[in-house]
Amino acid sequence: MTGVVVRNVRRADPAIVDAFAEHGVATIHEAQGRAGALAAYMRPIFPGAHVAGSAVTVSVPPADNWMIHVAVEQCRAGDVLVVAPTSPSEAGYLGELLATALRAHGVRGAVIDAGCRDVAELTQMGFPVWSRCVSPFGTVKETLGSVNVPVVCAGQTVDPGDIVVGDDDGVVVVPRERAVEVLEACRVREEREARSRARYAAGELSLDVHDMREALTRKGLRYVD
Amino acid sequence: MTGVVVRNVRRADPAIVDAFAEHGVATIHEAQGRAGALAAYMRPIFPGAHVAGSAVTVSVPPADNWMIHVAVEQCRAGDVLVVAPTSPSEAGYLGELLATALRAHGVRGAVIDAGCRDVAELTQMGFPVWSRCVSPFGTVKETLGSVNVPVVCAGQTVDPGDIVVGDDDGVVVVPRERAVEVLEACRVREEREARSRARYAAGELSLDVHDMREALTRKGLRYVD
Amino acid sequence: MTGVVVRNVRRADPAIVDAFAEHGVATIHEAQGRAGALAAYMRPIFPGAHVAGSAVTVSVPPADNWMIHVAVEQCRAGDVLVVAPTSPSEAGYLGELLATALRAHGVRGAVIDAGCRDVAELTQMGFPVWSRCVSPFGTVKETLGSVNVPVVCAGQTVDPGDIVVGDDDGVVVVPRERAVEVLEACRVREEREARSRARYAAGELSLDVHDMREALTRKGLRYVD
Amino acid sequence: MTGVVVRNVRRADPAIVDAFAEHGVATIHEAQGRAGALAAYMRPIFPGAHVAGSAVTVSVPPADNWMIHVAVEQCRAGDVLVVAPTSPSEAGYLGELLATALRAHGVRGAVIDAGCRDVAELTQMGFPVWSRCVSPFGTVKETLGSVNVPVVCAGQTVDPGDIVVGDDDGVVVVPRERAVEVLEACRVREEREARSRARYAAGELSLDVHDMREALTRKGLRYVD
Amino acid sequence: MTGVVVRNVRRADPAIVDAFAEHGVATIHEAQGRAGALAAYMRPIFPGAHVAGSAVTVSVPPADNWMIHVAVEQCRAGDVLVVAPTSPSEAGYLGELLATALRAHGVRGAVIDAGCRDVAELTQMGFPVWSRCVSPFGTVKETLGSVNVPVVCAGQTVDPGDIVVGDDDGVVVVPRERAVEVLEACRVREEREARSRARYAAGELSLDVHDMREALTRKGLRYVD
Amino acid sequence: MTGVVVRNVRRADPAIVDAFAEHGVATIHEAQGRAGALAAYMRPIFPGAHVAGSAVTVSVPPADNWMIHVAVEQCRAGDVLVVAPTSPSEAGYLGELLATALRAHGVRGAVIDAGCRDVAELTQMGFPVWSRCVSPFGTVKETLGSVNVPVVCAGQTVDPGDIVVGDDDGVVVVPRERAVEVLEACRVREEREARSRARYAAGELSLDVHDMREALTRKGLRYVD
Repeated sequence: MTGVVVRNVRRADPAIVDAFAEHGVATIHEAQGRAGALAAYMRPIFPGAHVAGSAVTVSVPPADNWMIHVAVEQCRAGDVLVVAPTSPSEAGYLGELLATALRAHGVRGAVIDAGCRDVAELTQMGFPVWSRCVSPFGTVKETLGSVNVPVVCAGQTVDPGDIVVGDDDGVVVVPRERAVEVLEACRVREEREARSRARYAAGELSLDVHDMREALTRKGLRYVD
Repeated sequence: MTGVVVRNVRRADPAIVDAFAEHGVATIHEAQGRAGALAAYMRPIFPGAHVAGSAVTVSVPPADNWMIHVAVEQCRAGDVLVVAPTSPSEAGYLGELLATALRAHGVRGAVIDAGCRDVAELTQMGFPVWSRCVSPFGTVKETLGSVNVPVVCAGQTVDPGDIVVGDDDGVVVVPRERAVEVLEACRVREEREARSRARYAAGELSLDVHDMREALTRKGLRYVD
Repeated sequence: MTGVVVRNVRRADPAIVDAFAEHGVATIHEAQGRAGALAAYMRPIFPGAHVAGSAVTVSVPPADNWMIHVAVEQCRAGDVLVVAPTSPSEAGYLGELLATALRAHGVRGAVIDAGCRDVAELTQMGFPVWSRCVSPFGTVKETLGSVNVPVVCAGQTVDPGDIVVGDDDGVVVVPRERAVEVLEACRVREEREARSRARYAAGELSLDVHDMREALTRKGLRYVD
Repeated sequence: MTGVVVRNVRRADPAIVDAFAEHGVATIHEAQGRAGALAAYMRPIFPGAHVAGSAVTVSVPPADNWMIHVAVEQCRAGDVLVVAPTSPSEAGYLGELLATALRAHGVRGAVIDAGCRDVAELTQMGFPVWSRCVSPFGTVKETLGSVNVPVVCAGQTVDPGDIVVGDDDGVVVVPRERAVEVLEACRVREEREARSRARYAAGELSLDVHDMREALTRKGLRYVD
Repeated sequence: MTGVVVRNVRRADPAIVDAFAEHGVATIHEAQGRAGALAAYMRPIFPGAHVAGSAVTVSVPPADNWMIHVAVEQCRAGDVLVVAPTSPSEAGYLGELLATALRAHGVRGAVIDAGCRDVAELTQMGFPVWSRCVSPFGTVKETLGSVNVPVVCAGQTVDPGDIVVGDDDGVVVVPRERAVEVLEACRVREEREARSRARYAAGELSLDVHDMREALTRKGLRYVD
Repeated sequence: MTGVVVRNVRRADPAIVDAFAEHGVATIHEAQGRAGALAAYMRPIFPGAHVAGSAVTVSVPPADNWMIHVAVEQCRAGDVLVVAPTSPSEAGYLGELLATALRAHGVRGAVIDAGCRDVAELTQMGFPVWSRCVSPFGTVKETLGSVNVPVVCAGQTVDPGDIVVGDDDGVVVVPRERAVEVLEACRVREEREARSRARYAAGELSLDVHDMREALTRKGLRYVD
């Protein structure tokens, strides 16, 4: 199943995709039922980025980034690149040159379950990357992988066209067909949280705001002096 | 010993606690005899924070943050929350909502031997957290833990009411009863270091400032060309 | 071979050393044939630093920084300190006092395969350090090591007088005798990359810029819809 | 999608499943095109085990093994249990009691992307487990998960009914619908390897057996003395 | 508080200590309320060991095992040595020579939150050690630590005279004053487990043996085909 | 410097090499002045192996084992293969087929700073390997590396012809030109240790055997009750 580039991937409605950028990764993870978060080792290369996009997936051999070059052609405005090596690698799969190419095709950022490099230049460009590590180790261009096939990235299955959201907390993936439902759940959740936040800021206790005291007592909580 | 909330914890004199914020974590660690530093994996979620507070300790089950809600009620101005799971966890125990509640009760920051989330919002609020990782994974509210019992956090025992100090180097804990003595040792140490610093900045060698040459020769140090 | 300080180390021409600071660590690593990069766990304590210097090497016992004090005397303007413990250690070998001494002797930064501390002060001073971890754990001054002997630091052999370059991607080492050749290879590489960058920014594909399509087809790449 | 138990899972022909136990994990991984191997941190609790079975998948909350109890009822002779927590956990999800129950239902072993305990008893029973760690930390029975839904375990997607093979090298997963084809590829591969093995044992070089010398020369390999 | 050797430590009744060796580490951890287990990285150097003893604690500087020599004199028949470095270390603190000395004083094994060496010889002697790693790196004898003071070892506080139990699952610590109560809880637990084991082995489901079905339904568990 | 095979490597006198197998890795590490031990993560794939050999070094690209095939031709009876990837890799570089070829040329074992596979077969063959991990991930044969050039393996420089010794404690490297001197130091050390062992086994304390009490008192050691 290697050596395949799938060209016409279904993407979610751009308005839906964009709307996800208004919600944090932790909120989205909760809103879709505590699912879809990538492993905690996936960290942004600079603080403050927050993007949502449609996944273009790339399955790559260890220390070989040839397929990312192939993937650029398949990218459109609003996409996010998701790169998963077939065996663990700390190589720096993506640097400033490839990021220039990706940006020219409208890509908003990249998620790489391996290394990333040229971090200073990427920061200056404002091109966000979430990766397992930063590493100057380079890659070759010798072996095929695939573009736009399902991949497992940092512990989560990502299908091409899934919505991928990254912020300072990490990365979450939302299956395309669940996007509308999850987005609505985010809104409901944030409205509820806004109400809680106001009451907490005023000094009210969550124990009272959410009526937790009785349940705590039933479980056996004791107060001592 | 689970399911207990201890209400009236002895805290150190607030002036003493506050005075610790004038000293770095590395200095305090030295001043109390190279003791009390939490493991090096405890990192601040943003650079530049430096707080000292009185520990409110929370022993939590894995991936369950119910007891942090219970702990808020026990917090006072000047406290720092110290959260220790009973088995290793990467869940995000604390986010911006709980931080809002903690801040409303005067809490200065949190130390969590597990994950933290809503890092962008916490940074904007200026609410510092030192944690093992950043992670969007959420928690449940189903199982009891305890508040204000002794905990082991990142390799150190923390008693409620101990002084906890965090800065860019990590976190150090000072037992309440040793606070005055350690604070004085910090001052002595910093005065001595100030004198060394001035001489070093002027180009003097520590070999001469501290008379190390003879000891080095006695140990057998040889200079070759 | 312990307990030796080598005094008169050959250094590369200062103009050559300085010229390396115009090239990124990833570029230099490529230009010398994918060699010389330190392990990816070596991270800068603050973003944005980029220095090149001549290596003064220090072989240190675990948790003992006495030899760094000895090394200061051997440092000159334009040097970078490279510290390698003889067994793994997370101790904080270098803080703001030693950095003050090093800077007074013209040292540009430090590379430590162990811990570093006083990170806030070092950041304020603008004294860059690349280290395995940040840690408040201190060190003693009891056992000899050596200065300006070959060391293995984060997986690479570093000889005294080698050129050491650090930036946000990590650290790379260039043997002194290869400096001119590698520097020239960096320039060639960056000129070629500048041409690619312009074409990528204009939306051209690397598949076309570098004529990759035929090779990909030969390897068996298939496009499907 | 939590709180679901899927009862009638399609399994591969038992003869096919059993035939996989004659091939090593590394061979199967190659034979299906370098795919399906779980992360290298999945290690057997004792050496020498080699089993193949039909996957019964269990998605579990962190530190909660209630769903494994639910899963036992869904197991049949020839199955292998695959347990994946929804957030990282080092809890000991499975011990000797549960293994007794699983064995009574014909289960051949377990694959757990978390901790395992009662290792001495499991070794005595000869019940093999591949896990991320061994840990005495226990679990609770409070929160639902799911049985026989697709899970991501140690970096690989596992569907219920997939063939799971474990040996001293680790664990590999073969999708049910590819089983016959992969099995045939294993056989072809092992026959070819048997021929190579005989020639290697007789002292022939793989350079000659597989005609590599010309390709190496073309790539530029040089021999020096 | 460094440089102290406490001589007359209270130990538990030897019959009580010995009785703990009949219970597994996982059982004891449960029986004392899910507490006292050391971190999962503490592994035995050979399989099959199972010992219980009275803790002689040793607080050691990094890479310095002088205090273990001091500790031998404080050991009695039935003790277990617990070694905790004051900052993280991978040095090999204990080898076959020290083990010979410890055994001559009746020590049953060692628990070291650092490295161990001479593993082949220790295995032949049948002297069990639980450690963070195996490592040939040696130690010096230059700096004081303490013997029989409270230490934090692999995340747990150990007081001298506590009961320490190690088996293939890891290590657990029982405070001396809770020993009788925890031992009784172990017995109750094992009797209950023996009854469950017999029913499980006969094919009964834990869902029925422990009446879990109603609780699962109440939580919302659904069965689908 | 890639793509080079050095053919006529100087090896130490076979009698010297063989004599090293009578000494443990920890002893040799001490005897050559606490130097030459590989990182503690290098573990044997089965217990009980103890070999010494002359290093044939192989510098390999990530996840590419072509050069090991090239190296076989350069091996002679009494050699040990030392494999170091140019960037970190968990691929399984060596399995049972290559081991068959190596053994046919007299190779005694392998040291790999990456993964190894076919562990069950290698154990049955009694072909020892020390590696960073066990992993079913395979490798390709596409890119050149070098044979018999200096490499950095698990933190140590290894030159071709150096003596490499592995046992249950790990791996140590002795430079060829220091072999005689280190061997003699091992013998002296073991004789001294034999005397200590006899006295320790008889219950004497190292405090007395080595007259440590005065030094301890001078450092300030206090005994309390």
